[in-house]
Amino acid sequence: MPASPIRKLVPYAEAAKKRGTRVYHLNIGQPDIETPKLLLDAVRHSDFKVLEYSHSAGNESYRRKLTEYYGKAGIDVNHNQIIVTTGGSEAILFGFMACLDPGDEVIIPEPFYANYNGFAVEAGVTVKPITSVIETGFALPPIDEFEKAITPRTKAIVICNPNNPTGYLYSRGEMETLKKIVLQHNLFLFSDEAYREFCYEGEHISAMHLSGVEENVVLMDTISKRYSACGARIGALVTRNQSVLDTVMKFAQARLSPPGLAQIAGEAAMGLPDNYFDTTKAEYRLRRDTLVSRLNAIPGVYCPNPGGAFYAMAKLPLEDADAFCQWLLETFSYKGSTLMLAPASGFYGTEGLGRNEVRLAYVLNSEAIHSAMDCLEKALEAYKMEQAS
Amino acid sequence: MPASPIRKLVPYAEAAKKRGTRVYHLNIGQPDIETPKLLLDAVRHSDFKVLEYSHSAGNESYRRKLTEYYGKAGIDVNHNQIIVTTGGSEAILFGFMACLDPGDEVIIPEPFYANYNGFAVEAGVTVKPITSVIETGFALPPIDEFEKAITPRTKAIVICNPNNPTGYLYSRGEMETLKKIVLQHNLFLFSDEAYREFCYEGEHISAMHLSGVEENVVLMDTISKRYSACGARIGALVTRNQSVLDTVMKFAQARLSPPGLAQIAGEAAMGLPDNYFDTTKAEYRLRRDTLVSRLNAIPGVYCPNPGGAFYAMAKLPLEDADAFCQWLLETFSYKGSTLMLAPASGFYGTEGLGRNEVRLAYVLNSEAIHSAMDCLEKALEAYKMEQAS
Repeated sequence: MPASPIRKLVPYAEAAKKRGTRVYHLNIGQPDIETPKLLLDAVRHSDFKVLEYSHSAGNESYRRKLTEYYGKAGIDVNHNQIIVTTGGSEAILFGFMACLDPGDEVIIPEPFYANYNGFAVEAGVTVKPITSVIETGFALPPIDEFEKAITPRTKAIVICNPNNPTGYLYSRGEMETLKKIVLQHNLFLFSDEAYREFCYEGEHISAMHLSGVEENVVLMDTISKRYSACGARIGALVTRNQSVLDTVMKFAQARLSPPGLAQIAGEAAMGLPDNYFDTTKAEYRLRRDTLVSRLNAIPGVYCPNPGGAFYAMAKLPLEDADAFCQWLLETFSYKGSTLMLAPASGFYGTEGLGRNEVRLAYVLNSEAIHSAMDCLEKALEAYKMEQAS
Repeated sequence: MPASPIRKLVPYAEAAKKRGTRVYHLNIGQPDIETPKLLLDAVRHSDFKVLEYSHSAGNESYRRKLTEYYGKAGIDVNHNQIIVTTGGSEAILFGFMACLDPGDEVIIPEPFYANYNGFAVEAGVTVKPITSVIETGFALPPIDEFEKAITPRTKAIVICNPNNPTGYLYSRGEMETLKKIVLQHNLFLFSDEAYREFCYEGEHISAMHLSGVEENVVLMDTISKRYSACGARIGALVTRNQSVLDTVMKFAQARLSPPGLAQIAGEAAMGLPDNYFDTTKAEYRLRRDTLVSRLNAIPGVYCPNPGGAFYAMAKLPLEDADAFCQWLLETFSYKGSTLMLAPASGFYGTEGLGRNEVRLAYVLNSEAIHSAMDCLEKALEAYKMEQAS
């Protein structure tokens, strides 16, 4: 079982803080946006007497309301096609376990969300990465890269759209390409759409929008990022494939039920106004624009403009981003501050890739992003000098 | 992946209710005891703004308070030896996954909690049941039954103490026997102590009380039954084995964090008075006494007196309890009521065992238990007549 690549720097960050250094956390996707009061108040004003198990698939009232949410996103499903999970994490795990046998292979464009590795280990399946590159902004790799990677043991493709860690938003053309591949090779298409609501350039094309792959597509979803409610641990697995639903229900029944208090919050979120995301999206877009322009203004740094989510990948003018990220926390400070970044190497399945790249989560307001970028600029200068000496 | 044996009767119960028949639910361990107001109020009065991820091992403040809880139960652990999980379910799954490799075998005295099967399938391990029998009240099977079942692939023994489904409370002598076996064969001892606080005959001997097996014992725990908070989904894996803790932490990090709102409730529970369980235990003891005496007064029925938990197993004067339980819901009613029982066959790993046994959860007040037993008495008469005709 692999350790979390982001969390290995945590002790260094803690030591920096103990020394009195302020640390700008651009390393982790924990949004600073407030959880809508409507969600928390629903829990605070609840008046039940016994905190009982819910239905293993989640409360029916919540699932019925979720169908309306999905309907507005152009996804036509009924409440029996939704299984509420303990975070998006459990949706991914259940999807892997229900659809794949030990020894099966899944293809994932890299860089990818590092915890897919962990869930693959838990399900006994092998991840076959195919590489997307920073020069194309991490677009979907060409179709022949998929063809080369497919073996008789390949059972699924996993995408995250918009993408964590790259922020890339797949185009309609790319989604159609994926459809073609999964149909041709009879694969599942697992689509992690945790960041669906955060698209800044063009429309979100869900895997659930594709017609003709109803039996292939399994949507993995979560309220964590959407409503800034990461600690709720409420997600959903959504599919029109009845036999997948039947198998997932067995896993769901084994763990009895998803969290009850947090389902109240999730259901309350269905009452948010349709324009709720406008403000949040405007805020994230401002941050993205700030971050991307500041990064590209630093000599030797390159950061493609991400179309969605709240992550950006940047290439740094150095050889070992892991060492640099540790140095930032261990050694560096500017005006009493430093920053924490996620080295990109942990997001690649192929050994040696992404060594000079980092992921930045724009989960701080733009003022803090400016200060963090001031730090980064000075840090890169200082690091270069130190390396040269 | 096996389906839940209890839930297969659910559609029949729903149909009975639609016909207007009252159903006494003795089939599932959902207590009717109110969740202590202190727990729910802590959530209702919380005033944070962002529902963030907690530490993957659970909030440190909660884990520190849990050490005091365990201390009072004679279990000396520090907060780094506790990993907060999403219900006891996840503690079981993490224990299996962290300690066992696919193909390994675990020995479990049967009848046992049916979901162990599900978690074993998820972890790719094989359950080897050894049989405990109703004639001894489901005492631990003799040591040579363990010896016969142990193979080179055996890696662990799983016990549930006090036991679900039998209510059996293991004696100090039996716990010492288990210690001897795990030491001799270098096995893990997984101890599910979800019902620790509900012991009516004698003292609870935790696996964590045994000395000399610090590296072997993994405690799986939950607040679900203890505080009637099944829907919270807060449990814990506790062990003094550092390498198990390290591996479990990787699984914990992959799923990010346990539920946040419910951890507030769990932590608040640490403020309940020491005598909190007295009332609850007195209530359960009354129900148990009612249930057991009523059962044993029915001709042909035998129910050993369970020492703990809130379950009893009974042998019925018939051949196929599965068919009878379905008939109760499909066909029978007395004064407009019927009852739902859990057929015991689903709790046995060995095919064909427990066919004439049922599990009864005494999660209803004693008045309802009396009414349910009236139903059962009449039902057994009617069923006998119907079978004979």
